[in-house]
Amino acid sequence: MKIQETEIRVRYQETDQMGVVYYANYLVWFEVARTEYLRSLGISYRKLEEKGIYLMVASVGCRYKSPAVYDDVVKISSWISEMRNSSLTFNYEILVKDRISATGESVHVFTDHDYKPVRIPKELAGLREKAGSERGRGSISST
Amino acid sequence: MKIQETEIRVRYQETDQMGVVYYANYLVWFEVARTEYLRSLGISYRKLEEKGIYLMVASVGCRYKSPAVYDDVVKISSWISEMRNSSLTFNYEILVKDRISATGESVHVFTDHDYKPVRIPKELAGLREKAGSERGRGSISST
Amino acid sequence: MKIQETEIRVRYQETDQMGVVYYANYLVWFEVARTEYLRSLGISYRKLEEKGIYLMVASVGCRYKSPAVYDDVVKISSWISEMRNSSLTFNYEILVKDRISATGESVHVFTDHDYKPVRIPKELAGLREKAGSERGRGSISST
Amino acid sequence: MKIQETEIRVRYQETDQMGVVYYANYLVWFEVARTEYLRSLGISYRKLEEKGIYLMVASVGCRYKSPAVYDDVVKISSWISEMRNSSLTFNYEILVKDRISATGESVHVFTDHDYKPVRIPKELAGLREKAGSERGRGSISST
Repeated sequence: MKIQETEIRVRYQETDQMGVVYYANYLVWFEVARTEYLRSLGISYRKLEEKGIYLMVASVGCRYKSPAVYDDVVKISSWISEMRNSSLTFNYEILVKDRISATGESVHVFTDHDYKPVRIPKELAGLREKAGSERGRGSISST
Repeated sequence: MKIQETEIRVRYQETDQMGVVYYANYLVWFEVARTEYLRSLGISYRKLEEKGIYLMVASVGCRYKSPAVYDDVVKISSWISEMRNSSLTFNYEILVKDRISATGESVHVFTDHDYKPVRIPKELAGLREKAGSERGRGSISST
Repeated sequence: MKIQETEIRVRYQETDQMGVVYYANYLVWFEVARTEYLRSLGISYRKLEEKGIYLMVASVGCRYKSPAVYDDVVKISSWISEMRNSSLTFNYEILVKDRISATGESVHVFTDHDYKPVRIPKELAGLREKAGSERGRGSISST
Repeated sequence: MKIQETEIRVRYQETDQMGVVYYANYLVWFEVARTEYLRSLGISYRKLEEKGIYLMVASVGCRYKSPAVYDDVVKISSWISEMRNSSLTFNYEILVKDRISATGESVHVFTDHDYKPVRIPKELAGLREKAGSERGRGSISST
């Protein structure tokens, strides 16, 4: 299974008055991780959208384990745990210095420009194989 | 069951290049709805924090049904579906012109200033009763 | 001179670890105020964009006088201080409980869908008169 | 004059329905650039705040020249153009593929934990010299 790791340094803007990262910002990091995951397989999500192919978010979940704070470097592991004809599921694990900060997943539906579901586009036809067959880091502790 | 409705007009800032509201912003609306839910029961979350009582987010989930766009007025219904000694669960339903845009839920843990879990604080002692006994709008379709 | 007042309650998301509103969020409030200013004159900015007319931001400035905190109700006064054939200038004053929290201004250029500058569109032709002739609250302390 | 360059890849979240980066997000990039500027001089802004020293924003300005879009890599040059006993001014220039996307500046006041202005703290005592004397990339087109 292909696993992509992306590092992000926490911005001051991402904190809240509790002194930690505001909970919605983890979803922004998930989005950054997805883009980098696809890029690591040679797929530019920007170009996909330019061709009229969208990965609409159908659902998202996140479990918060331990806070991240300003200037931390967070490491986001992302991988595709399921791929169907019209949808796929990304999983995420966010680490701060070897502590798990959060885990999450998002389900996406392939759509055209009018947000109508379409079958997996040819640009992504090889994704299932790439996502599953490339060697990653091995195992991820949990989701 | 007490249900609180909060209206928000979609900001330009909340949209993305797909022309719809960016998915993480639904969690911001959930947060606004929580504050207003508590206020409707006479509880100021700001004052709770000033006293050292926090409602840390332990997990969140959101299912996206239909997009919201700039300048839409979205209506967020929120209610407490479960309340335990050290945690509670908020549920949310977001409507745009009678279409369901999204549903979601978040689990929160009561903590002190050092983010250590505490039992339900006395300020919220009556919350269970208020949340469950006040008359709301009746039924909510589901989450 | 027409002055429009818009009230916004500070969201938890808008705070940062300093315990006050993060500085970039004032620009978001300016944007909300612009939309409401135009609406108060019968102009829907959403419809303007649907017709291919955009008010691109050319520049912005903001001076921070006194912080706003979570759950504060901020009052944003906005008015048009200058209007030319291809651009206009909005001014803003943000109050928190009669203290000035910030003042600012933004210059906007009328453009078409391809972001090319155009002369003032007919939908906005009457704006100069409306902006200047309707009675506002009188005087604003400063910009 | 010391000039620090910081690269940021545009996030989907940072775009708006116009298809370009929302104007307030440039101020977020300024903040990231400030942190990296200080780090390049051996100063951790996070540690400064932990010691009770804050760089409050007094004012900000930004001029938008050319849009940045999703997945662009933007290069932010930042430098200190003025330094006084109680304040300093950062300047910024944002490039997208050798086009200037925006220029800006922000004025900051040194404060203590209670947001009271203080004289330049000893941690920053050498900043004036470092900011002015280290060799940068020469000249910056303008602000």
